[in-house]
Amino acid sequence: MRVIPIDDLLRFVREDAPWGDLTSETVVPDVVCRAVIRAKGSGVIAGIEEARALFEHFGVTVYPHVSDGSVVTAGTALMDLEGSARAILLLERTTLNIIGRMSGIATGTREAVETVRKVSTRVRVAATRKTAPGLRVLDKKAVILGGGDPHRYTLSDMILIKDNHLALVSLPEAMRRAKARSRYLMIEVEVETVEDAVTAAEAGAGIIMLDNMTPEDVIRAVETLTQHGLRERVTLEVSGGVAGAELASYAATGVDTISMGALTHTVRNFDLSLDVLKGVFTVRLE
Amino acid sequence: MRVIPIDDLLRFVREDAPWGDLTSETVVPDVVCRAVIRAKGSGVIAGIEEARALFEHFGVTVYPHVSDGSVVTAGTALMDLEGSARAILLLERTTLNIIGRMSGIATGTREAVETVRKVSTRVRVAATRKTAPGLRVLDKKAVILGGGDPHRYTLSDMILIKDNHLALVSLPEAMRRAKARSRYLMIEVEVETVEDAVTAAEAGAGIIMLDNMTPEDVIRAVETLTQHGLRERVTLEVSGGVAGAELASYAATGVDTISMGALTHTVRNFDLSLDVLKGVFTVRLE
Amino acid sequence: MRVIPIDDLLRFVREDAPWGDLTSETVVPDVVCRAVIRAKGSGVIAGIEEARALFEHFGVTVYPHVSDGSVVTAGTALMDLEGSARAILLLERTTLNIIGRMSGIATGTREAVETVRKVSTRVRVAATRKTAPGLRVLDKKAVILGGGDPHRYTLSDMILIKDNHLALVSLPEAMRRAKARSRYLMIEVEVETVEDAVTAAEAGAGIIMLDNMTPEDVIRAVETLTQHGLRERVTLEVSGGVAGAELASYAATGVDTISMGALTHTVRNFDLSLDVLKGVFTVRLE
Amino acid sequence: MRVIPIDDLLRFVREDAPWGDLTSETVVPDVVCRAVIRAKGSGVIAGIEEARALFEHFGVTVYPHVSDGSVVTAGTALMDLEGSARAILLLERTTLNIIGRMSGIATGTREAVETVRKVSTRVRVAATRKTAPGLRVLDKKAVILGGGDPHRYTLSDMILIKDNHLALVSLPEAMRRAKARSRYLMIEVEVETVEDAVTAAEAGAGIIMLDNMTPEDVIRAVETLTQHGLRERVTLEVSGGVAGAELASYAATGVDTISMGALTHTVRNFDLSLDVLKGVFTVRLE
Amino acid sequence: MRVIPIDDLLRFVREDAPWGDLTSETVVPDVVCRAVIRAKGSGVIAGIEEARALFEHFGVTVYPHVSDGSVVTAGTALMDLEGSARAILLLERTTLNIIGRMSGIATGTREAVETVRKVSTRVRVAATRKTAPGLRVLDKKAVILGGGDPHRYTLSDMILIKDNHLALVSLPEAMRRAKARSRYLMIEVEVETVEDAVTAAEAGAGIIMLDNMTPEDVIRAVETLTQHGLRERVTLEVSGGVAGAELASYAATGVDTISMGALTHTVRNFDLSLDVLKGVFTVRLE
Amino acid sequence: MRVIPIDDLLRFVREDAPWGDLTSETVVPDVVCRAVIRAKGSGVIAGIEEARALFEHFGVTVYPHVSDGSVVTAGTALMDLEGSARAILLLERTTLNIIGRMSGIATGTREAVETVRKVSTRVRVAATRKTAPGLRVLDKKAVILGGGDPHRYTLSDMILIKDNHLALVSLPEAMRRAKARSRYLMIEVEVETVEDAVTAAEAGAGIIMLDNMTPEDVIRAVETLTQHGLRERVTLEVSGGVAGAELASYAATGVDTISMGALTHTVRNFDLSLDVLKGVFTVRLE
Repeated sequence: MRVIPIDDLLRFVREDAPWGDLTSETVVPDVVCRAVIRAKGSGVIAGIEEARALFEHFGVTVYPHVSDGSVVTAGTALMDLEGSARAILLLERTTLNIIGRMSGIATGTREAVETVRKVSTRVRVAATRKTAPGLRVLDKKAVILGGGDPHRYTLSDMILIKDNHLALVSLPEAMRRAKARSRYLMIEVEVETVEDAVTAAEAGAGIIMLDNMTPEDVIRAVETLTQHGLRERVTLEVSGGVAGAELASYAATGVDTISMGALTHTVRNFDLSLDVLKGVFTVRLE
Repeated sequence: MRVIPIDDLLRFVREDAPWGDLTSETVVPDVVCRAVIRAKGSGVIAGIEEARALFEHFGVTVYPHVSDGSVVTAGTALMDLEGSARAILLLERTTLNIIGRMSGIATGTREAVETVRKVSTRVRVAATRKTAPGLRVLDKKAVILGGGDPHRYTLSDMILIKDNHLALVSLPEAMRRAKARSRYLMIEVEVETVEDAVTAAEAGAGIIMLDNMTPEDVIRAVETLTQHGLRERVTLEVSGGVAGAELASYAATGVDTISMGALTHTVRNFDLSLDVLKGVFTVRLE
Repeated sequence: MRVIPIDDLLRFVREDAPWGDLTSETVVPDVVCRAVIRAKGSGVIAGIEEARALFEHFGVTVYPHVSDGSVVTAGTALMDLEGSARAILLLERTTLNIIGRMSGIATGTREAVETVRKVSTRVRVAATRKTAPGLRVLDKKAVILGGGDPHRYTLSDMILIKDNHLALVSLPEAMRRAKARSRYLMIEVEVETVEDAVTAAEAGAGIIMLDNMTPEDVIRAVETLTQHGLRERVTLEVSGGVAGAELASYAATGVDTISMGALTHTVRNFDLSLDVLKGVFTVRLE
Repeated sequence: MRVIPIDDLLRFVREDAPWGDLTSETVVPDVVCRAVIRAKGSGVIAGIEEARALFEHFGVTVYPHVSDGSVVTAGTALMDLEGSARAILLLERTTLNIIGRMSGIATGTREAVETVRKVSTRVRVAATRKTAPGLRVLDKKAVILGGGDPHRYTLSDMILIKDNHLALVSLPEAMRRAKARSRYLMIEVEVETVEDAVTAAEAGAGIIMLDNMTPEDVIRAVETLTQHGLRERVTLEVSGGVAGAELASYAATGVDTISMGALTHTVRNFDLSLDVLKGVFTVRLE
Repeated sequence: MRVIPIDDLLRFVREDAPWGDLTSETVVPDVVCRAVIRAKGSGVIAGIEEARALFEHFGVTVYPHVSDGSVVTAGTALMDLEGSARAILLLERTTLNIIGRMSGIATGTREAVETVRKVSTRVRVAATRKTAPGLRVLDKKAVILGGGDPHRYTLSDMILIKDNHLALVSLPEAMRRAKARSRYLMIEVEVETVEDAVTAAEAGAGIIMLDNMTPEDVIRAVETLTQHGLRERVTLEVSGGVAGAELASYAATGVDTISMGALTHTVRNFDLSLDVLKGVFTVRLE
Repeated sequence: MRVIPIDDLLRFVREDAPWGDLTSETVVPDVVCRAVIRAKGSGVIAGIEEARALFEHFGVTVYPHVSDGSVVTAGTALMDLEGSARAILLLERTTLNIIGRMSGIATGTREAVETVRKVSTRVRVAATRKTAPGLRVLDKKAVILGGGDPHRYTLSDMILIKDNHLALVSLPEAMRRAKARSRYLMIEVEVETVEDAVTAAEAGAGIIMLDNMTPEDVIRAVETLTQHGLRERVTLEVSGGVAGAELASYAATGVDTISMGALTHTVRNFDLSLDVLKGVFTVRLE
């Protein structure tokens, strides 16, 4: 998959070393060394391509052992590095932070996907816009690598009419305006009752978000839409703090996607180490 | 405390709406409305100032009910908003993402601080550089608001000699070079044995990081340094995956700080809602 | 509608005056003056809000006489200005260039929309991504103000499978991959024969672009899709150098949109003047 | 001629694909392919170097068949491409938009230059600052490639005293101030009468812009300046909506340049195609 | 005169406080205070407007006592400040650095201008492009405030053919190409002999730079050009390490400008102080 | 030592050639040439790495004869260049401005360091934040290359309590707050009397700045601190317009550092030349 532009990655390096890596520049001789990045837990790896792009930008040769999306266990070597010790040390924390967060997201997504798969082959686990500020593209990429659906990326790429909009305008008027804007936009509507789901489908919504409903209500919504001959016209999304044991219950309802903010807003960091190998440097650059 | 420059906050808005908020611009009339942001859980609030700066930049009046660092419970109104409905909806997700992450960090930090306080009035809980890429300043600010010590911000503002450096240079030589660089730099050394702690203190380190030691080893290190008359010369930091029940054990050892990567790398999002109030808009801007 | 961020507009001023407006700063006294911007032709005006944002950023008071989307004739005063003569002169060319291009696009779009309306109330005139580099959002906004459909904005906000993709992958495989990516993406397929249109509709495309077909072929495609019961499932777009007299012929075919690159790639500038009023300045700022 | 910095060109790619090219990344295998860019009309080509810089930045090998400034006819292959299919498809629209606009400007300029050359070997066709916002340097470069004179680029690189300045200050005072600013600045004055042309020349203007005069008035201005012995001291520019048949009339008047806003503000796009060659890709990158 | 855009000034603040002013934020209460900026030496002041723009951007009220270009003596209060103590302290060093450098340049320029004026009313002292990297516009502005001529700003705004160009192309060919580029560009030629000066003038150079000549040679060049009837056609510039006592000798030669790199490359900082007034703060902002 | 990111260096090129190097692009053929940069005075060279990075970015091969920190005499060749004549000429002024300023700073620093060394092996010469706006990192690097101590870089990387802070808060309260902020920050206090020096040391300051004291007072401060057993706990800095002959007097007092604003605020440019070699170009690129 696409690596984000190197300029965006370099901003992270600049954040971590605005006027250089004082320690490495000061105490470490300018030698070529070797290092290895290892997983310290098990899960789905993401961020390899971003780390590689950064290391290569600074002239470090990367020998990857796994690719993004691979499942690893504790101790697995993710990549070997060979190059300027100062460059490797400069990038250590930035690259580990990227891989650690992205792999954490991919691993969490994979767990949810597997929970769902046991119950349904139809339902997909989807992310939301509850990402860390500034990290939307990386967070969404990690979700995809974990097997999830990225959902919309921004407020600019879809129409999604939610309760806060409907506090200010009626649903029919909102739908009329949305359709008049463009024939190329996907339109989703958030509803909280079965009746509103039917109304939204009849009004032409392409996706309906069933928000904060119990699994029972969701099943009733699916049935009612089917009875009205509307089920196949719409994609059905379940939303609203779905977590833990509930996930399987919702997955069994017959909807198309379950969106979970926790995939990206509450991330368990994936633990990693970068170790410089002792005694193997041979070339002095100074 | 200082709010980061508005340009940095606006980058988050641009990320979330690169060519505008299609839904609000299309379906919502251009009216003035009122809205409220509420906590959906309990903890320490952070990010109020950043959210306020964003809302005010877009002409929305903010009536804050709590300030950064306040402890709140579920249901507490954090701020009322009054202004353009489109502006409020444009900023909803970005501001909630900021407050949600920062309050999550502040709340987690506070919990650790309170655990430690029961055991020691000396020890401080410190953050690391394991922050989300691009969010260093906000993450560190949230740590401070939670009562933690931010530790160094970047590779540029302190000398910290770690195992990866010592794989390439001896400690005495590293110390010599560090001191020769400048008389204004704090110098910290990471050690894994009591003996190395004494060596580092004798070599003039201002801070010693006791890495991956058991509480018993830490106690022995404190005692040994005291016996050598070196304890008062140095700040002692415990580091290395300290979590849960161990925290109190380490806090009782007599060190000065305990650094915890989890404060910023594994954040439990603080849940929030923004609700537009129905039926209270009165001014049509169109 | 939304004004693009002031920073983006200021880039245009910086382009036109990298180290200032030498003439005004050197020869013109620092007085407050009045000026008027007038249309020198007839058409649909666009860019008023962008010009206003720029003038107001530099402290010039704007009294608009028309709003974006208004139809004007030659001689119509678009806005009066009052403020620093140097600020008005600094912004003269940049604002006129913005209004001139945007109004040119809006006017051309309106002409196409009116041609189509005489024949069909269903068909919409749509833009393409053939915009001036860097001006995507302004060009699309002008299309909307002229009554057109903006179509997709970027390569990131829709799936559009074209002949160049199908040179590398089969349509069924492409559709399978597209659907597996996300349930939230609109999928469009470009076809050049009636048979391919049916295939694409059956494969689940939401929009079908009939490219470089004669009006007769388009009519046949509509009929064939209707016979297969597929017409209502898809949006039909006609594309491919449609211009002049053909427009009405295509509009009569029963499709949903006709996309025209010329709306934004071959723009007739809308002529304007900005005149400083003589003898009415009263305040000396120096 | 100089290619604008790659960062400026990459902004256009980012505009067109803020979070990637969804279609190519999703449906197209990661193979090496070949493609060709062809002219679909005849004219002067410009933008080859900019397109080349972009393709090469993304690792695509470019085999140009023509260089900037070449005259081509419909069907001419401008360049062959070989490289990652995804990279070529990512850049297709951006590069075609650049070449299409720049070649359109170069072609239009060449037509005006040829019209003038039939009448005079002295007169040059000059551009104005009526360029698309953000595209000043590319638009001016295209004018040069079409044989035109770029005129000043910005408000910072010349003094040009126009009617709007003279509404606020007298010509003698304006000239005095302009000369006092610097001895290194070219000074041009816009006049609308023969008398003012003489006054400006006597006051030391290096260039005189004869604005909105008939060809007869222009001839009279040339003669009068010659009689006063001032003709050789100044460059004479004709300005003001010169187009079509008038161009030859003005060219015959004996002035030095004729500036035409339409060269850059009303551009006929030069039509192009980029075609991926079927069945010739051999290397799978995935 | 024009103040550079605030974004450029804010870059300097960000350079000096990348993650805030730790001292002020930590130790100083958030009060309103008063402060005064005083000159600690005598000279020409420059940078007042830039400092003012920065202070006002952070909400500090500025009461200027002198304006840019004023001549002051040691002890003169340049401006009083009233506002947030933290804002004033944040900006202290940045604003003093700006005023200190700019006033140093203005003062040095004024000294050279006065030396020249005693000998000639014709000759102007001109700057070069030997400015501090990134400070071109501020350095040139300071030269103007000191009474100097800014000369060209960049490589983009004039043609200046120097010895390094003439190592690669003959003067006649260089002149032919320069004239063919545009009729709107000032053309200057650097020469080192009287004969070359005549050649350049005959070839149509508008400005001739007499480089590294003795005053006697310069006088001979002026005379020879006069004899050939070329003196009035050209501006004559003396260049090449002119300093100290030589300045008057060159000024007496009858040339038009003397350019001096030292005006901006070797600047004596103008000494200043900013003092917070004790005991006058009354409003607590916290 | 670390080279600043190329993007920062390219900003300087863009400043000097916003739309290209008109002269070289217009008059010079596109050939490969050779050139040499020579010192025109003696001193310590700095900026070689920055110049090299710029030349190499534009494809020019650099053959350095000296490295940063070398001591050279007039006439020494610093580097040979081989590459596109237009690239070399484009970069000539920018690179010479960088080397000229940085070498000027390094040379001045070296002079101060040598003066001090004759008197003391303990004392270091330190820079301040009185650098040219935007050039902090380059200025500090030049100080290091001249043998100086860079002192703090920004307001973010140390606590330094000065008189302006103490006008708003008492020293004990300031110290209490500073210590409460973090255990990782170096704390310096500025004092003007011997008594205050003792107070600051007792309060826990790590560094004490003796401001505007006579050498005699400084000696007394050292003695008094020694008597109180505080000397070894603190680093002592002398500050306040130290220059010329006084430097040796202060160096003899037994302090640790002497900071001098003049190192970076009043820089004597190091004179350089870049000469294109005649008659050695062989490859025509056009």
